[in-house]
Amino acid sequence: FRHGFSSLNLGTLRSQRSSSGFFKVECSQQSSKNCIDFSDPDWKSKFQQDFERRFNIPHITDTFPDAHSFPSTFCLRMRTPVTEDFAEGYPSDEEWHGYINNNDRVLLKVIHYSSPTSAGAECIDPNCTWVEQWVHRAGPREKIYFKPEEVKAAIVTCGGLCPGLNDVIRQIVITLEIYGVKNIVGIPFGYRGFSDKGLAEMPLSRKVVQNIHLSGGSLLGVSRGGPSVSDIVSSMEERGINMLFVLGGNGTHAGANAIHDECRKRKLKVAVVGVPKTIDNDILLMDKTFGFDTAVEEAQRAINSAYIEAHSAYHGIGVVKLMGRSSGFIAMQSSLASGQVDICLIPEVPFNLHGPHGVLRHLKYLIETKGSAVVCVAEGAGQNLVEKTNATDASGNIVLGDIGVRIQQETKKYFKEIGIPADVKYIDPTYMIRACRANASDGILCTVLGQNAVHGAFAGYSGITVGICNTHYVYFPIPEVISHPREVDPNSRMWHRCLTSTGQPDFI
Amino acid sequence: FRHGFSSLNLGTLRSQRSSSGFFKVECSQQSSKNCIDFSDPDWKSKFQQDFERRFNIPHITDTFPDAHSFPSTFCLRMRTPVTEDFAEGYPSDEEWHGYINNNDRVLLKVIHYSSPTSAGAECIDPNCTWVEQWVHRAGPREKIYFKPEEVKAAIVTCGGLCPGLNDVIRQIVITLEIYGVKNIVGIPFGYRGFSDKGLAEMPLSRKVVQNIHLSGGSLLGVSRGGPSVSDIVSSMEERGINMLFVLGGNGTHAGANAIHDECRKRKLKVAVVGVPKTIDNDILLMDKTFGFDTAVEEAQRAINSAYIEAHSAYHGIGVVKLMGRSSGFIAMQSSLASGQVDICLIPEVPFNLHGPHGVLRHLKYLIETKGSAVVCVAEGAGQNLVEKTNATDASGNIVLGDIGVRIQQETKKYFKEIGIPADVKYIDPTYMIRACRANASDGILCTVLGQNAVHGAFAGYSGITVGICNTHYVYFPIPEVISHPREVDPNSRMWHRCLTSTGQPDFI
Amino acid sequence: FRHGFSSLNLGTLRSQRSSSGFFKVECSQQSSKNCIDFSDPDWKSKFQQDFERRFNIPHITDTFPDAHSFPSTFCLRMRTPVTEDFAEGYPSDEEWHGYINNNDRVLLKVIHYSSPTSAGAECIDPNCTWVEQWVHRAGPREKIYFKPEEVKAAIVTCGGLCPGLNDVIRQIVITLEIYGVKNIVGIPFGYRGFSDKGLAEMPLSRKVVQNIHLSGGSLLGVSRGGPSVSDIVSSMEERGINMLFVLGGNGTHAGANAIHDECRKRKLKVAVVGVPKTIDNDILLMDKTFGFDTAVEEAQRAINSAYIEAHSAYHGIGVVKLMGRSSGFIAMQSSLASGQVDICLIPEVPFNLHGPHGVLRHLKYLIETKGSAVVCVAEGAGQNLVEKTNATDASGNIVLGDIGVRIQQETKKYFKEIGIPADVKYIDPTYMIRACRANASDGILCTVLGQNAVHGAFAGYSGITVGICNTHYVYFPIPEVISHPREVDPNSRMWHRCLTSTGQPDFI
Amino acid sequence: FRHGFSSLNLGTLRSQRSSSGFFKVECSQQSSKNCIDFSDPDWKSKFQQDFERRFNIPHITDTFPDAHSFPSTFCLRMRTPVTEDFAEGYPSDEEWHGYINNNDRVLLKVIHYSSPTSAGAECIDPNCTWVEQWVHRAGPREKIYFKPEEVKAAIVTCGGLCPGLNDVIRQIVITLEIYGVKNIVGIPFGYRGFSDKGLAEMPLSRKVVQNIHLSGGSLLGVSRGGPSVSDIVSSMEERGINMLFVLGGNGTHAGANAIHDECRKRKLKVAVVGVPKTIDNDILLMDKTFGFDTAVEEAQRAINSAYIEAHSAYHGIGVVKLMGRSSGFIAMQSSLASGQVDICLIPEVPFNLHGPHGVLRHLKYLIETKGSAVVCVAEGAGQNLVEKTNATDASGNIVLGDIGVRIQQETKKYFKEIGIPADVKYIDPTYMIRACRANASDGILCTVLGQNAVHGAFAGYSGITVGICNTHYVYFPIPEVISHPREVDPNSRMWHRCLTSTGQPDFI
Repeated sequence: FRHGFSSLNLGTLRSQRSSSGFFKVECSQQSSKNCIDFSDPDWKSKFQQDFERRFNIPHITDTFPDAHSFPSTFCLRMRTPVTEDFAEGYPSDEEWHGYINNNDRVLLKVIHYSSPTSAGAECIDPNCTWVEQWVHRAGPREKIYFKPEEVKAAIVTCGGLCPGLNDVIRQIVITLEIYGVKNIVGIPFGYRGFSDKGLAEMPLSRKVVQNIHLSGGSLLGVSRGGPSVSDIVSSMEERGINMLFVLGGNGTHAGANAIHDECRKRKLKVAVVGVPKTIDNDILLMDKTFGFDTAVEEAQRAINSAYIEAHSAYHGIGVVKLMGRSSGFIAMQSSLASGQVDICLIPEVPFNLHGPHGVLRHLKYLIETKGSAVVCVAEGAGQNLVEKTNATDASGNIVLGDIGVRIQQETKKYFKEIGIPADVKYIDPTYMIRACRANASDGILCTVLGQNAVHGAFAGYSGITVGICNTHYVYFPIPEVISHPREVDPNSRMWHRCLTSTGQPDFI
Repeated sequence: FRHGFSSLNLGTLRSQRSSSGFFKVECSQQSSKNCIDFSDPDWKSKFQQDFERRFNIPHITDTFPDAHSFPSTFCLRMRTPVTEDFAEGYPSDEEWHGYINNNDRVLLKVIHYSSPTSAGAECIDPNCTWVEQWVHRAGPREKIYFKPEEVKAAIVTCGGLCPGLNDVIRQIVITLEIYGVKNIVGIPFGYRGFSDKGLAEMPLSRKVVQNIHLSGGSLLGVSRGGPSVSDIVSSMEERGINMLFVLGGNGTHAGANAIHDECRKRKLKVAVVGVPKTIDNDILLMDKTFGFDTAVEEAQRAINSAYIEAHSAYHGIGVVKLMGRSSGFIAMQSSLASGQVDICLIPEVPFNLHGPHGVLRHLKYLIETKGSAVVCVAEGAGQNLVEKTNATDASGNIVLGDIGVRIQQETKKYFKEIGIPADVKYIDPTYMIRACRANASDGILCTVLGQNAVHGAFAGYSGITVGICNTHYVYFPIPEVISHPREVDPNSRMWHRCLTSTGQPDFI
Repeated sequence: FRHGFSSLNLGTLRSQRSSSGFFKVECSQQSSKNCIDFSDPDWKSKFQQDFERRFNIPHITDTFPDAHSFPSTFCLRMRTPVTEDFAEGYPSDEEWHGYINNNDRVLLKVIHYSSPTSAGAECIDPNCTWVEQWVHRAGPREKIYFKPEEVKAAIVTCGGLCPGLNDVIRQIVITLEIYGVKNIVGIPFGYRGFSDKGLAEMPLSRKVVQNIHLSGGSLLGVSRGGPSVSDIVSSMEERGINMLFVLGGNGTHAGANAIHDECRKRKLKVAVVGVPKTIDNDILLMDKTFGFDTAVEEAQRAINSAYIEAHSAYHGIGVVKLMGRSSGFIAMQSSLASGQVDICLIPEVPFNLHGPHGVLRHLKYLIETKGSAVVCVAEGAGQNLVEKTNATDASGNIVLGDIGVRIQQETKKYFKEIGIPADVKYIDPTYMIRACRANASDGILCTVLGQNAVHGAFAGYSGITVGICNTHYVYFPIPEVISHPREVDPNSRMWHRCLTSTGQPDFI
Repeated sequence: FRHGFSSLNLGTLRSQRSSSGFFKVECSQQSSKNCIDFSDPDWKSKFQQDFERRFNIPHITDTFPDAHSFPSTFCLRMRTPVTEDFAEGYPSDEEWHGYINNNDRVLLKVIHYSSPTSAGAECIDPNCTWVEQWVHRAGPREKIYFKPEEVKAAIVTCGGLCPGLNDVIRQIVITLEIYGVKNIVGIPFGYRGFSDKGLAEMPLSRKVVQNIHLSGGSLLGVSRGGPSVSDIVSSMEERGINMLFVLGGNGTHAGANAIHDECRKRKLKVAVVGVPKTIDNDILLMDKTFGFDTAVEEAQRAINSAYIEAHSAYHGIGVVKLMGRSSGFIAMQSSLASGQVDICLIPEVPFNLHGPHGVLRHLKYLIETKGSAVVCVAEGAGQNLVEKTNATDASGNIVLGDIGVRIQQETKKYFKEIGIPADVKYIDPTYMIRACRANASDGILCTVLGQNAVHGAFAGYSGITVGICNTHYVYFPIPEVISHPREVDPNSRMWHRCLTSTGQPDFI
């Protein structure tokens, strides 16, 4: 029997994929090249070769085979090493330089599930064979492909706000300056800034960015939508930009990749590097994205308020709506961290409001037994229960129906109907969370991502994005991470822990 | 040529070990059994066998081969699975249960350094061969070795305060109750509570612990030192305790392991499980320990205060002392997160105060060029520069000389001598950081560690501790993590990033 | 010519009263006894006599002329006085006792407006004559009218949440215990707790309340509405309650006064003392009420989020709705504190949305000149612009139309119509503000109010409430403070300062 | 018999003054003119005349009788008034203008103590006669004495950091711009900036100061000491500064007053206006000074940490040292707000550490009964118990001995001697409190003080300072507020409330 995998074509088939972005679908008769024939004794090495090909990161020499490289100007001014581990045959201090070897790799998957029945198991074959899947390690390289004095670097921030944007901007600027770049600009208000004549480039330097990480938002401004890829690249040519750092989500990254492609097509020696920005933490393959940790932290305030309102009221019910368009990570982690949530609802797990197993019936049970209840719902949860809007925002995202308001209204109605008083309070802290400055943990993440974005560009990579994978920093080719949003795996230990914490039943 | 490794005997030879707890020393003539002969073509598999033996986790059946097991009472009340990945040959919903297979493993090391010269490289052999090193995955097992109604579980917290203690206590109690345990007690004020007749056991239940995670400190109280291992085990026998959860650092874990050994010796069917508690993040092999993230977060407040004091004063110098007896993780990460530190000093990297390359000379440079400076120093840094005290606290830790005060005094003296005004402010936020409640990120970590500690005990393991390794949760045999404190590797990328951020030179 | 004043009958005539609760209306022919004839040379002394009568505080001896008093059991265990100011003729240390003399008074008004044209002038007569208006000073009395061992004290919290409820509860309990009271109970969930058989009294003691001020909400629970005054008093008789502390707003205080009257009627020797609880700060004659300061503090977070969202977006407009049903104090003070608000809208000052002087036109101006704007609106503002609901909540308050949502919608519509892009973000932080714990300033206020409530009850006063007036603590007879909500005076300096800060024009 | 009063000459005689700055000393034979003969039937009116003379505020016309005035350029762009209180004879809307009449006054004292034995009584004569004491109301005047286009305004911040400095700077700049001033500069690093050639004036405008209130510290920098008054005034002449705003404490205000005098002497038409900056809240006659509220708020964090450390340790004792060189307001209010302090020690109340009534003996009692204890000590408390240093800082302040460290050491020693274990933790949060940004309440206070400072200068006053008195804003002549630090009155209700809260005995 045969299974197939693909990261690009099956994004909409939720029932067929695991949360991790890898797919294990049965190969149909007319199956694609991504199909694995497990009866082939070489399937494993073939899989690994294919994987290596897919996760190879595009380099400037792909298009410009003669591109010159130079010794790196990123100087660590190295201090006396305190270890002399390899006295014989190992590098002497003089040789040491602190750069990352291009062939360093990081493992994408680190658990060996001994059986497909093990909780959260993600297997490729029915025997859960362990297969090494290596991706590229991020960091400064010994050789660089841009002369700092010839670089004009631009930074652009797209989409909605996310804690840490300023930290990333700041670190990109500082690291560029360490390399010796003098010409750094910010493109105002997302891709729009490339076309809107009224919006001037913002010159950036260490002085300008020194303390911007102390406040939330984006120094450069954000917006959704913008001009065509072709217009963006023309604008870049005009301005002489040869390094572009793009902070944004899936759509923005698709744009960045298209810009990268267009530059290759026009034979422009440009490095385009993305930094994934999604507060929802829904980018494939990454431990987490910046801003997520801060969001979970700030969500505690809203959940605790809901808990106190619910607990202090007679038959109080607190409903908190958190971010998460298609992924419930914020709702799940926030519920787990708070220990005060009775019902956590996420997009990945369907639920009924009404009926014997519905959420409302369980709320009745909680009111009768505990006297109060707290519900935490992700904005994208239960979209079958709200009216379709069909509207889309400038980023092309569908405008979601408001499940939080819906639950609030249905709850009030339900308790009125059954004749039990209930005091329902609804909290939507979205903008108060988004506008926060990054916490320390995100501050560090942003710092490292920002540094690595610059290292990647100078190393000559383009069409890549930076991420953290099993606590280590890596480069991914953009297409591998944007095929669809990362989601909570309902079979994962983390979701189980959340259920253990809330004690909620199945709502179907 | 030959290299040796050992995790137990060489803890004090700082110069010979890497930060990760693995040792790569040359084998001497009379070399021990931990010595690797790289000329042996089987060295790799021998290493892996040895590794597997060392990281095997002790089980109750080691001592009680006939110990009965029972189906787990930890019930996930499983909900409708939403994925049907493996339509053929894969487990049906009925089979699914959410338990961890005993043979699941997690990789300890996930980077393949392609060369020993690559930044932060940790290699076993001179060719940096990739060697799989697997450890045991944590989580609920299908079979348990204790009947919940026969369990009397005790929790004890030792050493100094650390954010998250109450979160772990709370989660252990809640998880024990989910298993069906009714008899849960807290031992007051550390191991002392086993011997001090005036201190009564504290009965614990969900009701008692419901909101304790909202405040810092330890519900049970902490203390250092305590009675002998023999007395502790006798007290446990007397009280009928057959599950012991020990929250503490290296010394406390050594005690826990000795208790485990003594129980085995006395043929007591007892599970002893540790939860590593060290705000310094200095436990071997773990991504991080609980409380660390909160400490870095709270340290921002102190560093920002020092920055503002320094920046607002004429020739202002702010000095912040942070925790870190033998490891500079808090100082390093806090400096990196703040982006406001000019000099970061940690125990792992020697420095001079005086002399042409000393810290003071660099401060003069900073005052002359920037007008102000911020120094962040770990409490254990530069112990060669302060008077030895020879005193030890009740935990047996050497009382450190105060390097923070020393730097403050020397800085004042130095600037007085060179006739330049300087306004030095010193901040020691230690107790304000330790007493904080856990932030959301630590709250989740504590929740999972607490749950896994209980799962481990019920699964029949003893003499183990729980940890997070490459973002996954694992069990370690206690001796492997306590041989010596984990330290910052001065060759690691993280320390380099910190140097990039501070811009500080070598102070030797 | 003649002017009248009244604090009771004219509450709804907004146009005729100043913000301070004093009325200066012309006496009509059939004028009431509150009418002043300024041609009477004795008008001033008559006014003062009348004032004194109105602000006299009811005492147990009014109804029980023979009520015994006892030396106070509230003992300050006085320490060595450090001043010896009055060596001759002044009290020796032995005489000193720290009690408040019953005849101590505090001035209600402390500005002498030299002219009715002076900003914020509140005058009684056309010449702005200075008239002393004295009220009773709060604090412990030397004689008490209840034997502590015969007291059963009850505390009840009504209405919505407000930061500081737990602080007041805590301090009442602690102070009662200092007096020697052993029998203290909490009535659960507001007045409802008097009638609902399912709700048990909660025994209170120092141990129970020790740390409740560290979290928000109300330990006792709150609710709106409840049984009749007669039923409440019957329940009190049944339970033997002879001291009742009522925490609530205007409606709750009206209830407390009615309970006081009913007790007098039934010849029950009961002390009923109110503590004004209104986060809106809308109680007459008081500097501020508890929770208000915390609300303004927490509102900063919402306003700053709106500012950052507005500032970071292209043509961003942030709208924040804050509490304030009939009074704009929170919106005004929060705007003033933030320095980031462009338009502040309060119930006391009418405004148009549309038209040449409307809010929308000004928003257009701000977008064109500054690129972004922040609006702060009190929930009770512009009620003429939203649909009347006619609904009332259990407290009898009219359910307000949602002016925040209205402004958001109209703004979006307006900018769409005029073809200028605008990115409108709406934040309603109400429940996140209400559920906060009290800040330090409110913590002190609550502590002193709670202590004084107990002092007042023991001193034999009933039908009173406690407050702060010109930084000093006083007792008021309940009717004087509840005739209508305190409001922002649009002619006051504070509103002018707010306008100076926002730079907003007149919206009519 | 006779009593004398003086605010200037008796500052050091602590035993003879009350906390309020008014003195009631017996007149000696050779008594000064400040002496009152109470047998004189006119003593009251004489006192009031003298008071009026003393609190008169210096005006530019005192020195320049012919100084021209102009209609104010501070325009409120007045909106539709909503009240029409005075239909007849009262000002029509056209007349209304929102300015403060020069003759408006505010009462300094608002309690009438009916007896000298009443708690906290501050009496002038033995009968506690009520005597009106009026001071000048602050705010914008209809006539101004400077043409905005001829003004060059300078701002200087002196002494140590205090939350709110940036808020005051910001508001002065904004208000000056509203008046129409274009030439505004900041003097860097205190008075030093007038003489140090290396320090350039910092041009200030709304743009520069827009968001400075979001961070702590001082945009301009602070320092102690500086050049002579004569040099400062010469520098001002040179630079053309004719409005000087001075933010600082007692010493700085003495300097400001001397500058004012020197300008008068040199016939310079200059307005010198102070804004009192003392985190200790120790300026005479004012409700509070800016930064104090924030300090009390932030101190909660330190006290709560000490409480948790003490509570979680076996026989834990937490010691917190707070600011307060000669006044215990921060320690008192912070203890009161926290409800977690067992012993509060302030400079105004002497105490013994040793002996039967000493602090240590009480700590033993607390450890024996409660198991833990928290001590809050003001830095200036118990100076008789620490070694005199004789050193002074650049402001001329005596460097205090460290009472916090002293208590920590003596406590450790004492418990060691009596053979009881005790775990003493010491916290000094001083710099972490000082460097905070102002909370909302202080933000408003700073805003109003800053606005009023500018109004005062434009109105032609000089040698004045701004303050809040009984919740209203006033101008004081500088000498009246700086004669000595305001202190906690040990007979005041507030100190009694603190004692009620801590339950501490007399330590003498």
